[in-house]
Amino acid sequence: MRSAVLRDRRFLVEEVAMPAPGAGEVLVKVRACGICGSDLHFFKHAHHMVEQAKKLGAPTEELERGLRTGLVLGHEFVGEIVAFGPGTARTLAIGDRVCSMPFVLRGAAPALLGSNPETPGAYAEYMVLSEALLVKVDASVPDEAAALTEPLGIAMHAVGKAALQDGDVAVVMGCGPIGLAITAVLKMRGVRHIIATDLSPKRRALALQMGASEALDGRAQPGAVTSAAALAGGTGLVIFENTGAPGMLSRLVLEAPAKSRLVISGIAPGEETFHHMVAIIKELQFSFVIYYTPEEFAAALTAIADGRFDWRPLVTGIVGLDDVAGAFKALEDPETHAKILIDPQHRGGLRAPG
Amino acid sequence: MRSAVLRDRRFLVEEVAMPAPGAGEVLVKVRACGICGSDLHFFKHAHHMVEQAKKLGAPTEELERGLRTGLVLGHEFVGEIVAFGPGTARTLAIGDRVCSMPFVLRGAAPALLGSNPETPGAYAEYMVLSEALLVKVDASVPDEAAALTEPLGIAMHAVGKAALQDGDVAVVMGCGPIGLAITAVLKMRGVRHIIATDLSPKRRALALQMGASEALDGRAQPGAVTSAAALAGGTGLVIFENTGAPGMLSRLVLEAPAKSRLVISGIAPGEETFHHMVAIIKELQFSFVIYYTPEEFAAALTAIADGRFDWRPLVTGIVGLDDVAGAFKALEDPETHAKILIDPQHRGGLRAPG
Repeated sequence: MRSAVLRDRRFLVEEVAMPAPGAGEVLVKVRACGICGSDLHFFKHAHHMVEQAKKLGAPTEELERGLRTGLVLGHEFVGEIVAFGPGTARTLAIGDRVCSMPFVLRGAAPALLGSNPETPGAYAEYMVLSEALLVKVDASVPDEAAALTEPLGIAMHAVGKAALQDGDVAVVMGCGPIGLAITAVLKMRGVRHIIATDLSPKRRALALQMGASEALDGRAQPGAVTSAAALAGGTGLVIFENTGAPGMLSRLVLEAPAKSRLVISGIAPGEETFHHMVAIIKELQFSFVIYYTPEEFAAALTAIADGRFDWRPLVTGIVGLDDVAGAFKALEDPETHAKILIDPQHRGGLRAPG
Repeated sequence: MRSAVLRDRRFLVEEVAMPAPGAGEVLVKVRACGICGSDLHFFKHAHHMVEQAKKLGAPTEELERGLRTGLVLGHEFVGEIVAFGPGTARTLAIGDRVCSMPFVLRGAAPALLGSNPETPGAYAEYMVLSEALLVKVDASVPDEAAALTEPLGIAMHAVGKAALQDGDVAVVMGCGPIGLAITAVLKMRGVRHIIATDLSPKRRALALQMGASEALDGRAQPGAVTSAAALAGGTGLVIFENTGAPGMLSRLVLEAPAKSRLVISGIAPGEETFHHMVAIIKELQFSFVIYYTPEEFAAALTAIADGRFDWRPLVTGIVGLDDVAGAFKALEDPETHAKILIDPQHRGGLRAPG
């Protein structure tokens, strides 16, 4: 089978052996897989991440081995069951489409798909999943939509961490796929004032499509936090920081009104600094997020299936395995794309969804 | 009446005019007032705080005027009603003992007692309070205990922010009065493992008296977080950071297991720095705390009155107004004192409580 392997900072499409599902595992044919912001980050910064981890005394052997041997990324996927391994319950059938949290249950701790050569991700024609983690995708849900379950799960989780209360005013800093999905979840939850902010006009237009009540240029003065604070009338805001821009946290600590809850999904590359006393006097709360619970993952697929989450504006293109490198390049320009999906069965250039 | 005025970085006991309660206000005779860690901080760092606030563009006129004119601190108090101002409901009686959240309700926003020359605090024989904020102290509660309502309210609030779950393992970093009160509240709430840590042997002994299951030297290796993580068996900890030591947050981000919730009451003097990606990968939560709600304040007094909070180990001495300066000095040594109360009616040197 064909697989897009990341090795020596390049994607190479290689013919590799068809993986064999082990005990409790299934083989699926990958139907679609999203390119995640964390994939872009990893592609650019993996070697820097190794250095940082070393400085902090964290183990790096596995990551270094993966970078040397080659890794297959891809953790936002939908696939179709083609074979069952030994010791499987087989409550689903061959041909059923499934999503899964991006782990396989082998050994003591779940292994993240794409994080090492033994558990490759979905940038490939086929992949192996744990049967226990499969969630069936309803026939009414297109592949393009099902592949968004994972990022929508993160958005559900982020909004959950904000512990929304009636009348909350929300700010969404950064309208990449996660910021846009958070905007949609806030809208779903009935939040009336959702002020999104991004440097890109295209992303701001998408934010309005996904449910933002206002979309401001990230450079606008007064900024989103000040505008939102005026609407909130003295109560704290819920602020979703998805940019990972260095210095953003420091700025938010100074700008946010007292009692604001910051939910932080954007990864800043190094150390961040803030005025401690200001955070205390304002009684701010920072919740850092990167995962979701199985319940949030399932709730995301349900919201897609019942039409509450309008995925169409998000997916801006589909490529085959040969164009993964090109898609990574294209995603650097926020004016052109939001989410690009990989369809490993597709040959030929970028195509539009649907 | 006599009052301990902070001016030119010194406490001076001065004869000042008896304050007159305005509309909705009462005059109380102060029976006891705790010296708060924030009073110590303010005494040492007020001029630095002005500089910092200026750098951040925050207004400093009022604080500067206060430092020039003279301030009367004291916001952890119990008093006895001696007179009612005009327009009061008078549901309480002359002679009733009362606590109050440390604000007076004048003008648009509540004014913090001790923060400006117009709203002096309880380092004085008498003070003015808002009738609407008074909470009656039961006859069974000694003055020494009632004066601890305010710091215990902060501890109740801090523990509330941790959103305790069954089986949580707690770490209490820093066993000053707030850390000790947090320890007591955790014990009250049924937390089985409470690992307290402090540099001072005396404070560690107090932590054990207040309910800690273990008390470690802050320099011990492995430290409290590592020991607690072993007990928690892979789940996140609740960590109360009360030291305000520079660099402590950075250290906790590296040491804390994933999903830990940090409740931060200790004020570090400047900017704090931490590894952003580590906080994200671990999904940490930081809750900064300084206040409490009226409900938490009332709950604190109830816990004192019904004997659930054993205040006796905390109060290590009582001084009159003439010895405020000496008490501030004595509190620099954690081996001798934890909480010193001021009894403005007391003449003569430091006395033991009870």
